[in-house]
Amino acid sequence: MRIAIDAMGGDLAPQAPVEGALAAAKEWPDTELLLVGKPDAINPFLGSGKPSNVTIVEASDKIESDDEPVRAVRRKPNASMVVAGRMVKEGGADAMISAGNTGALMAVGLLVLGRMKGIERPGLTSVLPSVDKAGVLALDLGANMDAKPEHLLNYALMGSMYRQKVHGMAKPRVGLLNVGTEAAKGNELSKAAFELLSAAPIQFIGNVEARDVLERRCDVLVCDGFAGNILLKAMEGAAETLFNVLRTELTSSLRSKLAAAALRPNFRRVRLMMDYKEHNGAPLLGVNGLVVKSHGSSDAASTRHAIRQARMAINNGLIPALAEEFDGK
Amino acid sequence: MRIAIDAMGGDLAPQAPVEGALAAAKEWPDTELLLVGKPDAINPFLGSGKPSNVTIVEASDKIESDDEPVRAVRRKPNASMVVAGRMVKEGGADAMISAGNTGALMAVGLLVLGRMKGIERPGLTSVLPSVDKAGVLALDLGANMDAKPEHLLNYALMGSMYRQKVHGMAKPRVGLLNVGTEAAKGNELSKAAFELLSAAPIQFIGNVEARDVLERRCDVLVCDGFAGNILLKAMEGAAETLFNVLRTELTSSLRSKLAAAALRPNFRRVRLMMDYKEHNGAPLLGVNGLVVKSHGSSDAASTRHAIRQARMAINNGLIPALAEEFDGK
Repeated sequence: MRIAIDAMGGDLAPQAPVEGALAAAKEWPDTELLLVGKPDAINPFLGSGKPSNVTIVEASDKIESDDEPVRAVRRKPNASMVVAGRMVKEGGADAMISAGNTGALMAVGLLVLGRMKGIERPGLTSVLPSVDKAGVLALDLGANMDAKPEHLLNYALMGSMYRQKVHGMAKPRVGLLNVGTEAAKGNELSKAAFELLSAAPIQFIGNVEARDVLERRCDVLVCDGFAGNILLKAMEGAAETLFNVLRTELTSSLRSKLAAAALRPNFRRVRLMMDYKEHNGAPLLGVNGLVVKSHGSSDAASTRHAIRQARMAINNGLIPALAEEFDGK
Repeated sequence: MRIAIDAMGGDLAPQAPVEGALAAAKEWPDTELLLVGKPDAINPFLGSGKPSNVTIVEASDKIESDDEPVRAVRRKPNASMVVAGRMVKEGGADAMISAGNTGALMAVGLLVLGRMKGIERPGLTSVLPSVDKAGVLALDLGANMDAKPEHLLNYALMGSMYRQKVHGMAKPRVGLLNVGTEAAKGNELSKAAFELLSAAPIQFIGNVEARDVLERRCDVLVCDGFAGNILLKAMEGAAETLFNVLRTELTSSLRSKLAAAALRPNFRRVRLMMDYKEHNGAPLLGVNGLVVKSHGSSDAASTRHAIRQARMAINNGLIPALAEEFDGK
């Protein structure tokens, strides 16, 4: 299989995507990694002895993080992100990965690859950590800001299929992010979505509160892009702040430093559980091709995770399965 | 001053509100605590020697947690929560506190006390913890599910005044909860609210992301009730889960148990920082009188905190100040 990597996208580009691709090339010799970007920028990080399954694809331009998404995608046909999208569209790659401008990546999905038939709005999905490590697939996390109930139904169906195809779950439990568990709770959007999900061919378990996500009350969490993004960032922020405060507190005296040193492996395990980088690689579901968003601050290890996600989705035929499910419905 | 306490509301009622009131009565001899509820249920927890500033006010009925709010308030005029609201309305109390059904408390605010002139929708506010312990006053946290931009403007003005009057801040920084910091980010609601807040007579600092709340990027966080509730519960849930995982991890071996024991005071301090009970007492701003929501699972200590919040609001003339600000505008 062939995976195109936007070598110019993300805070740590080109180093992080290039080094991540090198690690992936070594780990999965059956996968061809196509680094899309400026050769002059990429070459210094390739080191000596580039593996034979890593190729550079020249792209002379790049999309900046503050570019206006739709305009940038239209006006920069030779930007690395756009070139990678075109490769997926034209069959030159089975998937593309980018850590660049999220809005622009959405625009690449919609303008270059096109919306999947039967889907009104694509959704950005990611696996949120859970205590039992199986994670919760949540969508939409910010692709679509003003969702309609029908969009949430799209997300539920796509998320359910993702869990089945990519994660091998027979009957993923689908929950709706809401402010309470009772059916009548929430805003107009969530009440209408509740009705639609109740009638859908999925295992809908009802409303799920934000505080229960980490306990994996459901396998697929359906939310509108605004609330989903708030949820994701609130959990990330709380975990990060708590670790920072804990670190300051535990290094405040020699006595606490010594005791904390003995607990280092334990802290590392807890930290890993809440590590969003471990779960890096958020597919944009609902477009004609596999587009994976990598976290903007992705390092080489995170890039490798995103490549792993893309590999699993390709191996399990996610996109053809989604197309078959939705096309013509 | 006189504070009416719904002795029948909350998961731990009547014990928690009664014991919280007793503690408050001792601490603040200038405050008269009026325990509203069934004397037979309250008396067993009063112990011997009821302080002279604690009085029982009989209310023969109560609102259940699963009662339909508006109907319950209309059909149960003798419920403790409704009686407490009527006392504020008629001048028999300067504030009321309840840990009961949030929707019903909203209904008491709207139907018994009435909406404040110039306010379209009341907002439920609470102080979220922050690393520097000054906290972030956030509203609305769930009173109003489908907010309009004008409601968010109401919240910004009320929250700003609350910070000034009750917390003594000269120029509270007001932020808008959003999915990114740039002005053009967000859904239709947040974009329209951004315009209104930019033109309002407050110190508006722009959009604030969920992950930055704990760092106290702003003093007042304006949000719609749905997203605010998601934020609150996501942060609470992440902190609680993290502490649980840490506890399990640190008691997994004798070695880790011993090291962890030495760090107990440090853990306690971190825990306290994230303790939402410490900040208990969420006023419902925008109704004609001081109505304070106490957390449903409030214990005696949390009840005392809510009473402290109410005392500060009364002493600083919050309600008259809000009325003066909004009336006729």
